[in-house]
Amino acid sequence: MNFTLTVLGTASAKPTAGRNQSAQVLSVHGRFFLVDCGEGVQTRLQECHVSPMRIESVFISHIHGDHVFGLPGLLSTMGMLSRVKPLTIYAPSNFGPLLKFFLSYYGEGIAFEVRHVPLNMREPEVVYKTKTLEISAFPLNHGIETFGFLFREKEPQYNVKKWKIDEYGLSLSEIAAVKRGEDVIREKSDGSFVTLPLDELGYKPFTPRSYAYCSDTAPFPEEAEWVKGVDILYHEATYLDSLSDMASERHHSTTLQAARVALEAGAKKLVIGHYSSREKDAGLYEAECRTVFPETYAASDLDTFDVPLVKYL
Amino acid sequence: MNFTLTVLGTASAKPTAGRNQSAQVLSVHGRFFLVDCGEGVQTRLQECHVSPMRIESVFISHIHGDHVFGLPGLLSTMGMLSRVKPLTIYAPSNFGPLLKFFLSYYGEGIAFEVRHVPLNMREPEVVYKTKTLEISAFPLNHGIETFGFLFREKEPQYNVKKWKIDEYGLSLSEIAAVKRGEDVIREKSDGSFVTLPLDELGYKPFTPRSYAYCSDTAPFPEEAEWVKGVDILYHEATYLDSLSDMASERHHSTTLQAARVALEAGAKKLVIGHYSSREKDAGLYEAECRTVFPETYAASDLDTFDVPLVKYL
Repeated sequence: MNFTLTVLGTASAKPTAGRNQSAQVLSVHGRFFLVDCGEGVQTRLQECHVSPMRIESVFISHIHGDHVFGLPGLLSTMGMLSRVKPLTIYAPSNFGPLLKFFLSYYGEGIAFEVRHVPLNMREPEVVYKTKTLEISAFPLNHGIETFGFLFREKEPQYNVKKWKIDEYGLSLSEIAAVKRGEDVIREKSDGSFVTLPLDELGYKPFTPRSYAYCSDTAPFPEEAEWVKGVDILYHEATYLDSLSDMASERHHSTTLQAARVALEAGAKKLVIGHYSSREKDAGLYEAECRTVFPETYAASDLDTFDVPLVKYL
Repeated sequence: MNFTLTVLGTASAKPTAGRNQSAQVLSVHGRFFLVDCGEGVQTRLQECHVSPMRIESVFISHIHGDHVFGLPGLLSTMGMLSRVKPLTIYAPSNFGPLLKFFLSYYGEGIAFEVRHVPLNMREPEVVYKTKTLEISAFPLNHGIETFGFLFREKEPQYNVKKWKIDEYGLSLSEIAAVKRGEDVIREKSDGSFVTLPLDELGYKPFTPRSYAYCSDTAPFPEEAEWVKGVDILYHEATYLDSLSDMASERHHSTTLQAARVALEAGAKKLVIGHYSSREKDAGLYEAECRTVFPETYAASDLDTFDVPLVKYL
């Protein structure tokens, strides 16, 4: 039941020594989701021991080269490894022609189906759902079609406290009511009603975990609300605060802007990356963010952030 | 007056730990030529301290992904670095649509001209020429349009030995004849002729250096002749000798086949690469080649091979 983020690339437009371009892999309950796909992603996947064959689906924020140029090689390798399982790529609609052209030139070696789910929502929308996980996409503010992603474990059903079953002699229908999240209401022999409150009878077995990916974007009014309460917020922080004019002009964020989103969203942890190549020391980015949001971590390539499962009872 | 090869990637179709895909940079007299352009080429160029801005032109052997997927990122970076100087890419004609599509999607940030010189020759043909260097392309045998490249310093003019000018009192026209590589023929007073031989009067100031790139290819009859006498022959050796059937089926070479080309060509040194991902130890490839051609070196990423200038007098 893991929930683990590995940051594969932390550079922005140009790769620099030791920093590849944007890509991340999120592992949830043994499934692997690739988020953006900068050049060199295959090497990074090898370095963190994730086979390309285990990638279940890919989430592309936008078509700028530093977020997609690793995809042709990755798809080719999956083809050479004889992948059969379809691969779904969630990406803006302008990704469609890119994929189509690629497949027209290099599709011969690719025997599996590559499905493109075009993103064009104006507000958060669930794009992927299993019994235990939900993934939403939402628009970012980057000058071209760009989307963020929110990975969230589903709220678990209530469990019934076993000793309460004995204590109150709960019936099957009462147990079902608790599992649905309802109080149990009993009619007494005198015709009056008594309420056995949900909180006394049941409990949530764990707290759902969540991760949000916001790259590339300038801050915008709805942003914090859309990633409210996440365990990990990854937010680009391309520029130090001193370059806020450049950030604004290029539809990117500064350290302080990223930190303010985390603060306002009530995120548990902020992970930053996508550093401008003009500044080599990511520690400076981290320090600036921490003046606003102390739980900030400036990611390096291959850094891993685990969200442990918090169980109750 | 350097002549230096740096191998940037030595993997074949799939990158492996520490091995990127095919790319090389040849530095001749301070000019940088990029030969093939596998994914991750920018990082490798950084690691060997060659700015993308110094790449004068690019030579692409064929359009398989492991030889070209680094190009979109490299061109984008050149654009971001504000390159102005045109970039010429020598590549098979089926590279044209790839470049056109790329520029239609990502050309906005690329202010410099990208020229494609389509290759479609049936035998060696000079494609690039300066006063001191000549580059030829020639077809390889890889099942799709694929070309090798031969970089060769031009044969220098003869210099005249200074003491011979004094000894024979050579005239300006006689000196010019020596420089053209001719014997000097003098008429004596009795009407007979005397020959002053070129070898006595002149000398070549240095031996021209050369480098040939043969990847990817199965061996073919003309190959050794076309790379005759090169100082460094880079030849793919995708498979060990035990996999010669697979090599033949996939239009690749084995170690022994590469070594035999080097031997027959009278190459001074054989550098091999493009190893299959199934075998981790390049030392095995080297050992097999050396049974046929002892001056074989199994390249690792970032290995450098220098051809020193041999001067006379």
